[in-house]
Amino acid sequence: MYGLIEAGGTKFVLAQADAQGNLHNITTIPTQTPDLTLPQIYNYFRKVKLHGLSLACFGPLELNRDLPTYGYITDTPKVAWRNCPIVPNLAEQLPIDSLIFDTDVNFAALGEYYFGRGEGSRSTLYLTVGTGIGGGFVQDGNIFKGVSHPEMGHVLVKPCPGDDFAGCCPYHHNCLEGMASGPAIMHRYGCQATELGTNHVVWSYIADYLAQALLTYTVVLRPERICLGGGVMQNPALLPQVQERFTAYAGNYLPLPPAATYITLPKLNGRSALYGCLAGLLPAEKISNLQAQLAKAAKANE
Amino acid sequence: MYGLIEAGGTKFVLAQADAQGNLHNITTIPTQTPDLTLPQIYNYFRKVKLHGLSLACFGPLELNRDLPTYGYITDTPKVAWRNCPIVPNLAEQLPIDSLIFDTDVNFAALGEYYFGRGEGSRSTLYLTVGTGIGGGFVQDGNIFKGVSHPEMGHVLVKPCPGDDFAGCCPYHHNCLEGMASGPAIMHRYGCQATELGTNHVVWSYIADYLAQALLTYTVVLRPERICLGGGVMQNPALLPQVQERFTAYAGNYLPLPPAATYITLPKLNGRSALYGCLAGLLPAEKISNLQAQLAKAAKANE
Repeated sequence: MYGLIEAGGTKFVLAQADAQGNLHNITTIPTQTPDLTLPQIYNYFRKVKLHGLSLACFGPLELNRDLPTYGYITDTPKVAWRNCPIVPNLAEQLPIDSLIFDTDVNFAALGEYYFGRGEGSRSTLYLTVGTGIGGGFVQDGNIFKGVSHPEMGHVLVKPCPGDDFAGCCPYHHNCLEGMASGPAIMHRYGCQATELGTNHVVWSYIADYLAQALLTYTVVLRPERICLGGGVMQNPALLPQVQERFTAYAGNYLPLPPAATYITLPKLNGRSALYGCLAGLLPAEKISNLQAQLAKAAKANE
Repeated sequence: MYGLIEAGGTKFVLAQADAQGNLHNITTIPTQTPDLTLPQIYNYFRKVKLHGLSLACFGPLELNRDLPTYGYITDTPKVAWRNCPIVPNLAEQLPIDSLIFDTDVNFAALGEYYFGRGEGSRSTLYLTVGTGIGGGFVQDGNIFKGVSHPEMGHVLVKPCPGDDFAGCCPYHHNCLEGMASGPAIMHRYGCQATELGTNHVVWSYIADYLAQALLTYTVVLRPERICLGGGVMQNPALLPQVQERFTAYAGNYLPLPPAATYITLPKLNGRSALYGCLAGLLPAEKISNLQAQLAKAAKANE
């Protein structure tokens, strides 16, 4: 069995995968404090003999092996988790040979690259639009990193005419996360995005900011496909507006596929990061097997 | 001998390098039309026995080997060069075993990474700010590419209060190139940037747009160092303003070096791309020798 953890700001999803890549015992626990949440993870996995464990975690994460804080969550706005040694804690508490970890969005990008909308393409960019906004980029099976993981939600955007919101990112104000995340909608109107109705003017702003950012990622990273996940994307009226605004911004400068195929929702809805966790643990031939199996299952479901 | 070509919008620079990496017979010819310019290149190199030839060329370039237009300059605003088969032409006219090519900024990034401001770092981002704006990113000795080379000059920026210029990029209007390139300054005031004096208000706009874009590259690519080259950067008052605005925009979100070391001018002033061309042709041990030699020469000059 392989152990899989997706650690998000509101919930942790725990799962086990067998050697054929089937997911078992998927369990969700709320994200409280490390003292309350981590012991539940230990208990869940102690019952299983694990070949390896893979953690997809909200960031920022310390990825530099040379630092004593390797595997820590660092400067997160989730105060209880700031400087939490999550990877060292898991390694200490669970008897496992191999433990890999990365950001939730990096693993979500890997999952979609192998098993979702990116399958068969050279590269996939995954952006989550929810409580926070973050992105991961996978090319030729490798998760892109510079000095550390990207922080794509913090690209600056130009405010739309009519939108006088100053942005809620404490660092950058009018960055994408400051203008288009769930909390940015909440700050404007004092309610959840879902309560505003799918045709509220705020959706045209969100679509515009996402389109600006997607053009930026497009000219910098040149991805082959883009997947937009996260809670904010669950308004079905949003994706077509993003595609339309993107096409207008892109202005036919680069040879791109039509926006309707270039920018899509994830295929592994809600499971992108878990499948990415698994892809990170599996050898290449098992990834191919799992691809074939998932494609077969998808066909049977049609 | 190795042959080196830097093809720019206003001039071509031709050079030869010996096995020790010394540059010889550096020659500049104006960029006219392919019919006038290319034969001068053939003549220059026909006199030399070449081990290899390396071309750093203004873009966009077709890098996809599977297309019949591989090695062509594609949709450039320089109309005479649009769809010019520059690489096939050079391969046909010159008796060479190996010919490599890439964008001018990708090779400039490679040159600075090995021999300039990026030496000893894991990664270097090079941005040229001139007639056009373009960027290249080198990490662990590899030039970053997605589906094709980046087009970093086309990230969108937020217009500064007081700057009512709509942008001169025919595709994106208020992208970085549309707002901060040499032509963008020219369009605003009808004269060259240099004629405006180093303290004109336009420099505060240019600094702001560059700072916004550098924050964008920073959160997407996470480079270790950034070099700003090109004609517009030759105003000595500009770099400190960019560093200052960048620090303000970055807002201490990411652990970054001080802006004065993170963002600098290139060290190989005017020769970044030529040295990058050479690095692309040299085997690893010769790159190390050349690094040592250039470091020694730099020390002797101090």
